Amino acid sequence: MAWALVNASPDILAQLQANSLLQPERAVRDTAICGIVLVDGQVDHTTGLYMLREATRSWPIWCTDSVHTDLTKGNPVLNVLAHYCGVERRRIDLAGDGFRVDGVAGVHWHALPLTSKPAPYSPNREAPLAGDNIGLRIENSATGQALLYAPGVGAIDEALWRSMQSAACVLLDGTCWSDDELIRLGVSRKRAREIGHLPQSGAGGMLEWLDRLPSRTRKVLIHINNTNPILDEDSAERAELARRGVEVAWDGMEITL
Amino acid sequence: MAWALVNASPDILAQLQANSLLQPERAVRDTAICGIVLVDGQVDHTTGLYMLREATRSWPIWCTDSVHTDLTKGNPVLNVLAHYCGVERRRIDLAGDGFRVDGVAGVHWHALPLTSKPAPYSPNREAPLAGDNIGLRIENSATGQALLYAPGVGAIDEALWRSMQSAACVLLDGTCWSDDELIRLGVSRKRAREIGHLPQSGAGGMLEWLDRLPSRTRKVLIHINNTNPILDEDSAERAELARRGVEVAWDGMEITL
Repeated sequence: MAWALVNASPDILAQLQANSLLQPERAVRDTAICGIVLVDGQVDHTTGLYMLREATRSWPIWCTDSVHTDLTKGNPVLNVLAHYCGVERRRIDLAGDGFRVDGVAGVHWHALPLTSKPAPYSPNREAPLAGDNIGLRIENSATGQALLYAPGVGAIDEALWRSMQSAACVLLDGTCWSDDELIRLGVSRKRAREIGHLPQSGAGGMLEWLDRLPSRTRKVLIHINNTNPILDEDSAERAELARRGVEVAWDGMEITL
Repeated sequence: MAWALVNASPDILAQLQANSLLQPERAVRDTAICGIVLVDGQVDHTTGLYMLREATRSWPIWCTDSVHTDLTKGNPVLNVLAHYCGVERRRIDLAGDGFRVDGVAGVHWHALPLTSKPAPYSPNREAPLAGDNIGLRIENSATGQALLYAPGVGAIDEALWRSMQSAACVLLDGTCWSDDELIRLGVSRKRAREIGHLPQSGAGGMLEWLDRLPSRTRKVLIHINNTNPILDEDSAERAELARRGVEVAWDGMEITL
């Protein structure tokens, strides 16, 4: 079976080792991953690319123009890969009607520009452009059921809200519980919203939006920072999620559409 | 206790998690690592720096001028870190009489230029300069006993051989068993020597050199490629190492000088 990898985490080596489906062993240094889709140029979504450099063929990598610039200028990992396996860049066109990942049959992909923040080394850091951060609507062509994946959501705009409402499952930005969490814990001087992440709690927070979704929608938080109390399964915040029917993603989670 | 980190592997997160000594927990995001020493600008020695970006203070990083150029031009991870924790670069001077890592008491460090190859993205790739790759002589000031660490050794020159002879323990380049190993397995078109690694077997190979060291010298192979048969504990090659008194390094190995 052929797989698409969405973002390349610094944990990619552990992820590959834990998942035998990704290791078909048809040849030396084989992989079942046939394409990589990036939603932004952040370190936590791209560092794993270095660990994939010894692939036996060029990686097809889907990304927007903004992300391509971040990854060839500010943090030029794609240039580095060119010295190893090579990259076949596939352009994500925000104006188009979506794309397919070659080799992954029966899945239609659609990119959704998000209100968030590009990486600190992006030329657009202080004046974000559409395409610096995207969400992905991933649709099972056979059933028409779609999943929405959006790890960096600074605010929920009209297009994102429409996409959330029509998805069978949403995987949404769970970075911070509260807007001032990073400041209170002394790890940053910035609020969650200032770095492009809508907090879960408080007025206008993610939980208020999730409450308004249809009850049949599966709601899962992802991209959870290690300062977020929901990582503690015994916390009051985690209990609140359970009451509201909101799940916390875990390594190896499988979702069927 | 204060620790120096020599090279930042892509496995750094697993290494930190496995070693509680490195997690003193005196504060949020605390670490016992107080300085980083780099021997070259290769991906396998620098990718872990991305995972150390959320440190609460700038990282003191020791490297030569050549390596600093590789990591600010070809693969500018040090520029990327400047957007996060920051870097305090400490210059390794090949002409000097060594250096100390601030905070790590009782240890004297000495850099040894090696005949090897810088990373593919280095401006010096095809015409290596002294300082592209170094070995480290790490001496316990109290006992005078020294360890030699050299993961990238393309050839053993006079200075390296002298350093090998006077070390209590040598950790040496164990990348490939045979010069044509990468070609035979179809993972590269290059011989081990062409990419700056002296193979273990054959005339003039690493094992011949190790045989000539004093019998009291502890001999350990490091930086072992996943094509090298010595990783298989039941292989004939591994048995040959045992006969010759040569060890294979393992994760978590501790060496006392």
